[in-house]
Amino acid sequence: MKSDVLKQLTEILEARKKHADADSSYVASLHKKGLNKILEKVGEECTETILAAKDAAVSGNTDDLIYETADLWFHSLVMLSHLGENADAVLQELARRFDISGHDEKASRNQSHH
Amino acid sequence: MKSDVLKQLTEILEARKKHADADSSYVASLHKKGLNKILEKVGEECTETILAAKDAAVSGNTDDLIYETADLWFHSLVMLSHLGENADAVLQELARRFDISGHDEKASRNQSHH
Amino acid sequence: MKSDVLKQLTEILEARKKHADADSSYVASLHKKGLNKILEKVGEECTETILAAKDAAVSGNTDDLIYETADLWFHSLVMLSHLGENADAVLQELARRFDISGHDEKASRNQSHH
Amino acid sequence: MKSDVLKQLTEILEARKKHADADSSYVASLHKKGLNKILEKVGEECTETILAAKDAAVSGNTDDLIYETADLWFHSLVMLSHLGENADAVLQELARRFDISGHDEKASRNQSHH
Repeated sequence: MKSDVLKQLTEILEARKKHADADSSYVASLHKKGLNKILEKVGEECTETILAAKDAAVSGNTDDLIYETADLWFHSLVMLSHLGENADAVLQELARRFDISGHDEKASRNQSHH
Repeated sequence: MKSDVLKQLTEILEARKKHADADSSYVASLHKKGLNKILEKVGEECTETILAAKDAAVSGNTDDLIYETADLWFHSLVMLSHLGENADAVLQELARRFDISGHDEKASRNQSHH
Repeated sequence: MKSDVLKQLTEILEARKKHADADSSYVASLHKKGLNKILEKVGEECTETILAAKDAAVSGNTDDLIYETADLWFHSLVMLSHLGENADAVLQELARRFDISGHDEKASRNQSHH
Repeated sequence: MKSDVLKQLTEILEARKKHADADSSYVASLHKKGLNKILEKVGEECTETILAAKDAAVSGNTDDLIYETADLWFHSLVMLSHLGENADAVLQELARRFDISGHDEKASRNQSHH
């Protein structure tokens, strides 16, 4: 699994948030428009994910489902960033619930040397 | 970042899906109830995430936001699993969009030895 | 069309809101739980309406669609009531947009006597 | 209450649906784009209604709430029309639940002459 994608994406999102005024990126434009616009996108992508899931169950084709779920996760990352949070806090919460050791990548690498 | 949480959680979810008949877990019960029930939960958690974000913007407390976002991501993982997909396909799509190298953890570890 | 249902329902909802403390109705319980719970229900019923619409398009059976849309409208009426508004303001806005004369039932009845 | 607005709006929506090919209206464009696009709008307007309700609870201003609820109801009417249903079936379901007599406007008028 491309397990460090969320980490790298979080860094990209923070950089684009920091330079939102000078930046012409989509992420910068979302931050400038504010929380309601970001949450509208989260809700919109959630609906599109649900529709794509219903269509995938009929057609067997999951391309749209993957695309829309990526949109949903992406906009929820922008939401977290806008409110001073990031993916790590969410992953920690998931790890806690499922009793996943949750050592980070670096710790994991070190442990593998023991 | 706890970058392998999604990987471990995906394995847990697949195991619980596989043994859904014998399993009394919440995940097994969702698979038994079917896609509509899973999608209802995705929609429900999306609304709760949006409400938690609005409240966090007023109170400055992000505890509920993290909790509800974890619920949203978790149920979207169950949805992916129900339709034969998993988090990796979504992370690959995100990596592609943001031009993230997306080497997996093992590749990354090997590279760090060069 | 049962054109006065919304009017009568609005009166029922206002009565149940007014006596929420003494009332054991579902409407009273929603007001006591507060706005977030009411909005969670609006979001939940919206998702269920969308799922019912997708299923109706495949099966041709619209029973669930009608049921879920009624749930959605009902909870949006409770939301309006909770915030001091009612269906009439929404119907006026719709009438304005579509250039519907929008005389109320009484006015309409009087005109029919001319 | 402008109790016949939904009836008149239903007639307008049916006319625009019938002539969707020749019609350049927004309603006609929704029917041409199909059910998913209509349901995306229902979901989108539901999120905007929820956000407007949260903002109204803070500001005391319900203008946006009324506007967004009108958008939500309007797009749910287009959805019903697209699937061969209309507001009357939903109002009948609501009347049934709340034990509202639900005689239509004409019947009501006749009764008032007894």
